[in-house]
Amino acid sequence: MIKKGETVSEISILQKTKVVLAKGDGIGPEIMDATLKILDRAGAQIEPHFIEIGEKSYLMGNSSGICNNDWILIDKAKVILKAPITTPQGKGYKSLNVTMRKTLGLYANVRPVNAYHPFVETHFPDLDVVIVRENEEDLYAGIEHRQTQDVVQCLKLITRPGCEKIVRYAFEYAKNYGRKKVTCMVKDNIMKLTDGLFHKVFNEISSEYPEIINETQIIDIGSARLASNPENYDVIVTSNLYGDIISDIVAEVAGSVGMCGSANIGTEVAMFEAIHGSAPDISGQGIANPSGLINAAILMLSHIGQNKVAEKVKNAWLCTIEDGFHTADVYRKESSVKKVSTSEFADEVIKRIGKMPKQLPVSTLSKAKGKIEIPKFVRKIQNKNLVGVDVFIDWAGKIPKEIAGGLNSVKAINMKLKMITNRGVKVYPNGNKTTYCTDHWRCRFVGDKATMVGESPIYTSITFEQVVSLLAELNYAGFDVVKTENLYEFDGERGFSLGQGE
Amino acid sequence: MIKKGETVSEISILQKTKVVLAKGDGIGPEIMDATLKILDRAGAQIEPHFIEIGEKSYLMGNSSGICNNDWILIDKAKVILKAPITTPQGKGYKSLNVTMRKTLGLYANVRPVNAYHPFVETHFPDLDVVIVRENEEDLYAGIEHRQTQDVVQCLKLITRPGCEKIVRYAFEYAKNYGRKKVTCMVKDNIMKLTDGLFHKVFNEISSEYPEIINETQIIDIGSARLASNPENYDVIVTSNLYGDIISDIVAEVAGSVGMCGSANIGTEVAMFEAIHGSAPDISGQGIANPSGLINAAILMLSHIGQNKVAEKVKNAWLCTIEDGFHTADVYRKESSVKKVSTSEFADEVIKRIGKMPKQLPVSTLSKAKGKIEIPKFVRKIQNKNLVGVDVFIDWAGKIPKEIAGGLNSVKAINMKLKMITNRGVKVYPNGNKTTYCTDHWRCRFVGDKATMVGESPIYTSITFEQVVSLLAELNYAGFDVVKTENLYEFDGERGFSLGQGE
Repeated sequence: MIKKGETVSEISILQKTKVVLAKGDGIGPEIMDATLKILDRAGAQIEPHFIEIGEKSYLMGNSSGICNNDWILIDKAKVILKAPITTPQGKGYKSLNVTMRKTLGLYANVRPVNAYHPFVETHFPDLDVVIVRENEEDLYAGIEHRQTQDVVQCLKLITRPGCEKIVRYAFEYAKNYGRKKVTCMVKDNIMKLTDGLFHKVFNEISSEYPEIINETQIIDIGSARLASNPENYDVIVTSNLYGDIISDIVAEVAGSVGMCGSANIGTEVAMFEAIHGSAPDISGQGIANPSGLINAAILMLSHIGQNKVAEKVKNAWLCTIEDGFHTADVYRKESSVKKVSTSEFADEVIKRIGKMPKQLPVSTLSKAKGKIEIPKFVRKIQNKNLVGVDVFIDWAGKIPKEIAGGLNSVKAINMKLKMITNRGVKVYPNGNKTTYCTDHWRCRFVGDKATMVGESPIYTSITFEQVVSLLAELNYAGFDVVKTENLYEFDGERGFSLGQGE
Repeated sequence: MIKKGETVSEISILQKTKVVLAKGDGIGPEIMDATLKILDRAGAQIEPHFIEIGEKSYLMGNSSGICNNDWILIDKAKVILKAPITTPQGKGYKSLNVTMRKTLGLYANVRPVNAYHPFVETHFPDLDVVIVRENEEDLYAGIEHRQTQDVVQCLKLITRPGCEKIVRYAFEYAKNYGRKKVTCMVKDNIMKLTDGLFHKVFNEISSEYPEIINETQIIDIGSARLASNPENYDVIVTSNLYGDIISDIVAEVAGSVGMCGSANIGTEVAMFEAIHGSAPDISGQGIANPSGLINAAILMLSHIGQNKVAEKVKNAWLCTIEDGFHTADVYRKESSVKKVSTSEFADEVIKRIGKMPKQLPVSTLSKAKGKIEIPKFVRKIQNKNLVGVDVFIDWAGKIPKEIAGGLNSVKAINMKLKMITNRGVKVYPNGNKTTYCTDHWRCRFVGDKATMVGESPIYTSITFEQVVSLLAELNYAGFDVVKTENLYEFDGERGFSLGQGE
């Protein structure tokens, strides 16, 4: 806590936006103190509420690193500035970052990355990219099941509200901050339904922003181009896993991992943090670089509408970097003037409040249009029609025709076996003998009146009672059913993928 | 086909290894002719069998771009050298590459990437990395289901035989070609069961190769370091999606996308190809760079044990690059001597057979130990015990307690509702009101005697009859069950993840 008489206490004189502050672990308290001192002197209108999250909270018995009272404070303040924390080693401790993102519905992770050449070395002096990463769903829902000796599964969940929120946030962000282009990255040549949904929503929403250029790239070549030519990108929007990868790539090639802040935006709550960790190896020495948290605080000020203060802090910070006052992590003889401590760095920033950088681009945050508001999701209802079920069976055999024979002799009420795949590859009917088979067989049952017209299957409706009866019969016949996936059409359109080779 | 009297016909005189050759589409035939001419003059002992795959085959009515006779030829020869093909636009045409990989069980995609600085520009002159990518499973099994208005799902499948084969291949490759280090990339801090399995298998197998350094990196920071410091890597082994991304990154930052070949290795069959596409825009002009296919052919020669010929071709090719005879794509005034056509390039390579490069590293392929053999997978059987089921319900409501109330009143024989999650986040019991809920509710049912001991749940066995009965009762009570995932313990160890916040 900040003691009375210290500089930071002055923040509370002009009570304005409530902000929850978490000093965190390791270098956290040092860089938080430095950051708050700068915010104070720049005239930030915030009312600070300190919470104790991280290592101490974990060790006091909170398995998620945060106590119930802190949730209540967060719920009141809606804005969090968080220094890095340490998750203790050992079982049962869950990542506080993941818990906070998910519990508070922080759907957007926003990470602006810039080059600060020649003060921070990079191959890409003009790099200026913002990654807008979906933050709640995708494989990071963490739903995993092992169901046979050989096979483990993780569910990748992509939702329409999730896609709409993140894509709209990216375009609103671009509009708000005068960005020219939004690039979408997906792998919908392979994942036609999940990544296809993300791409489809991107196309829908981008058409509402004709003044902003839009483009879509496949994630593999997109990541590669981002690594080799990051200066060609402006705003990038993508799903959770891809975003995790590319936001690290761009920070690394910019050389500015130690300088980046990021925002986690929710419908009600938003959390701001440095992208680096708590660096326990250098904690307590007063040598850490507070720039990551300073940049996080700048994002926070902008988010709560204090764009002028945000701009003032940013320009003062840019001047400090330009003038060569560098903490040890960035210090290089050729481009630095003085190696400074954490608090000296803060003092140098404070000295430059009101000044403009001469070489690095001047911040124009005060021109931002204001708070970004995302409309509530409105669900459109389509007609959903059950047409079959994929039954997954654990079977140690190797010959597809054998399991098919067994399945065909099971009494399935008005249903028939359409195909079997193993790891997605069709092995019945007409499989290829070189296809390797695990013990995880996906057996597709559809209505017995289903037929083919040319290359296109035509399905017929079934009832869930038929599915339940099929499961009972399969079990009775000795098949080890490990999971099911119903097959639906939505407004007559197939809501499931075909087998590879189907 | 090659006519009698042409250079390539001489290959057939010394009948040795049968090789299926596919000239492909676009620039395919031009670069294949150039490559075969070089192989012939270098003394490659191959017996060529040409097949017609790609665009023509698609348009003749083969929806996967290959006809049945060609499968028979492949089955006999076991080795394929394939020029790039074009998949026609339009519905129903499936990626031939994916079909071939999966149908032939080509489990390993191997892509060596090198810098050819200063002849090809790069920031990383010493880059020399081999990506060994799992090629059959992961999200690319392509099993997708839409089951509610909001939510679409893709299954990520990771298997023990898949992990064992690819990891062992990576270590055997390193051993065979004198590589020093194998790096594993996973995201097992989030996906503890699926990526956890890959990591676990990596640890098991790496211990059998004490002479090779091993390390594991999280894919996000791993990709970032690969993009910024690729010279720190040697061999990298990873799963399908991550491998897709990082193999493009490394080729791009090396500047050598047009130069790379790759191998697709199966237990019986192997396929070799350039990593670039069929470039229809420059086809027929005789200006394409055949280097990608030449390097693929070098990988092929090494794979079939003709390492001396492989080395001879590689060194001649390196000399040609060094001597500044460059096709248009690589030509730069500063580092090139002459802009050459496809066939002129081949002639320049042929002129240099027997010569050694002076500046670029000399190929030492002839020191490779020989063919890589991977032992057959042996399944270890663990005791599998059914302890519950995750039932996924489509429900348009918003208040978790409402659906929980309904579920608790359903007659479940000796089972009870343990928790409900939405997109992986626990919302019942004791959810947080800010958690956003879609229409996709995962409802976990376990034996009614299951209990908690401290932080750890203790489960009890249930039968599949109980699961079937539960499904029938849920359906009768009006719940729309869209999918199920059984919960198992294996040798007493939990085979499923806990909910976020459970």
